[in-house]
Amino acid sequence: MTASYLHNHRLIIDQGLREFFPTKDPKAINVYEAMEYSLFSGGKRFRPILTLITAETLGGKMDRALPIACAIEFIHTYSLIHDDLPAMDDDDLRRGKPSCHKKFGESAAILAGDGLMAEAFSLISRSETELGPEVTVLIVKEISDAIGVRGMVGGQMIDIELAGRETDHEAIIYMHSLKTGKLIVAAARSGAILAGASNGELKAISDYAADLGLAFQIRDDILDVEGNTDEMGKTSGSDIRLKKSTFPVTVGLDESKNQLSEVVSRAKASLEGKIEDNARLLELADLAAYRRS
Amino acid sequence: MTASYLHNHRLIIDQGLREFFPTKDPKAINVYEAMEYSLFSGGKRFRPILTLITAETLGGKMDRALPIACAIEFIHTYSLIHDDLPAMDDDDLRRGKPSCHKKFGESAAILAGDGLMAEAFSLISRSETELGPEVTVLIVKEISDAIGVRGMVGGQMIDIELAGRETDHEAIIYMHSLKTGKLIVAAARSGAILAGASNGELKAISDYAADLGLAFQIRDDILDVEGNTDEMGKTSGSDIRLKKSTFPVTVGLDESKNQLSEVVSRAKASLEGKIEDNARLLELADLAAYRRS
Repeated sequence: MTASYLHNHRLIIDQGLREFFPTKDPKAINVYEAMEYSLFSGGKRFRPILTLITAETLGGKMDRALPIACAIEFIHTYSLIHDDLPAMDDDDLRRGKPSCHKKFGESAAILAGDGLMAEAFSLISRSETELGPEVTVLIVKEISDAIGVRGMVGGQMIDIELAGRETDHEAIIYMHSLKTGKLIVAAARSGAILAGASNGELKAISDYAADLGLAFQIRDDILDVEGNTDEMGKTSGSDIRLKKSTFPVTVGLDESKNQLSEVVSRAKASLEGKIEDNARLLELADLAAYRRS
Repeated sequence: MTASYLHNHRLIIDQGLREFFPTKDPKAINVYEAMEYSLFSGGKRFRPILTLITAETLGGKMDRALPIACAIEFIHTYSLIHDDLPAMDDDDLRRGKPSCHKKFGESAAILAGDGLMAEAFSLISRSETELGPEVTVLIVKEISDAIGVRGMVGGQMIDIELAGRETDHEAIIYMHSLKTGKLIVAAARSGAILAGASNGELKAISDYAADLGLAFQIRDDILDVEGNTDEMGKTSGSDIRLKKSTFPVTVGLDESKNQLSEVVSRAKASLEGKIEDNARLLELADLAAYRRS
């Protein structure tokens, strides 16, 4: 993916997020500002870009995909806010700035996360006129399943419980498949569903996205060891501080890099012969795997 | 409402909640158990019963209403778990038992709340075969709007910010209309929508439910002063401890009771001549207003 192409998609997402952000109520201003602060603090917009690119690749229209993409970014942002809380990973920094609870206090941060999740489903439900109600319901199902106990929330619970314990590699892969994998798969599948993908295409996109999510996570683990706090925008080495089980911890840094390369190849192979004009999806896989922050 | 009628509806809700509770993943068991603990700790099931009774009153079928009613109870339970957190109202007791974070720890409690909200939308999306996708989308919209920043989350933010301040009565009524009112209105409206209510019926049900919600809240405030910890199942007087602005604090106990009586009469009047066979809805209003715990 060329930098300008990616830059353009990020601008579209940012514009959508501004458009779909709820009108502020001065009486509850703190929670709106906490939501806004975390939404616009320089995220990569990886998940919503994946939704847009998947939809475009399969012939879907950008304006139909945008509200769903933005809803997914609302949800991703909620998950970061809650993950940073003192009772969870207790992170003071996020994207180079104070994390939400450091800036707005813990109660506003908990509520901002809750509010963003609710807002995501409100936004999806309002996209019904564009998508038709059957598609809208399918997308509600995809996303809600991906972020609940069988997905993101379950994965975060496992992550917290594994911290500080001897863990086998399989357990970590399973945890990641829930914690980050499911939402990334849902982001891609939602784009495919709203573009009217066939079952075969949906299967190829799901396989691709599952490996894409794993690649994204292995890269995160590697960056936590190799990156510096300045480039990462969060406290480098925080996995080590929390005694989190990561790829480098269980299989070593070199083997982590080998596995990353394998996983990316597998992600790309899932698309071969099944998804036409897949260049941008291939580029996105490289971007996820070899990004510097 | 006769006790046996109410008892029967509670049993139906409890059975539904068990049926719709997700299959437990042993690897993330803590969050499932935290969700289950809070869901089955003796709640009144007021909101889901309201959904069922509204649907029945308007000729809807119980089996169509049940998943939506249970989704609303998932959401109500999530809100109690998060409201009790140390950073929020810091309550150690809920329904006579340790609150979720006291029993399972703060991280599991935050995740249990998050998981219940996600599960609610998953459950609604899965009810599509019963309701048809248009109705399902309408209900997602009703509920997500009611619980976001323009509803429950915004109301909780205002409640926290008003604590310890001199507050006028209007501000408290506004806070309650968001914090408890909107979800109660959505519970009634969802029942009406899935029963195929006319616009006139939907308007009457909305007016009724808004006052019902206010009555419910005034009664809560009165019970916080008059009730004892044993009957209430939560720490009595906790509003006073938190310096929360309540009806008794701003207008006194007697005037609170007068207003409660007025609000209940208004709720009942909204149904007159507009909703046929409204006896159970009238009884539910009395129940909300004059319950002892």
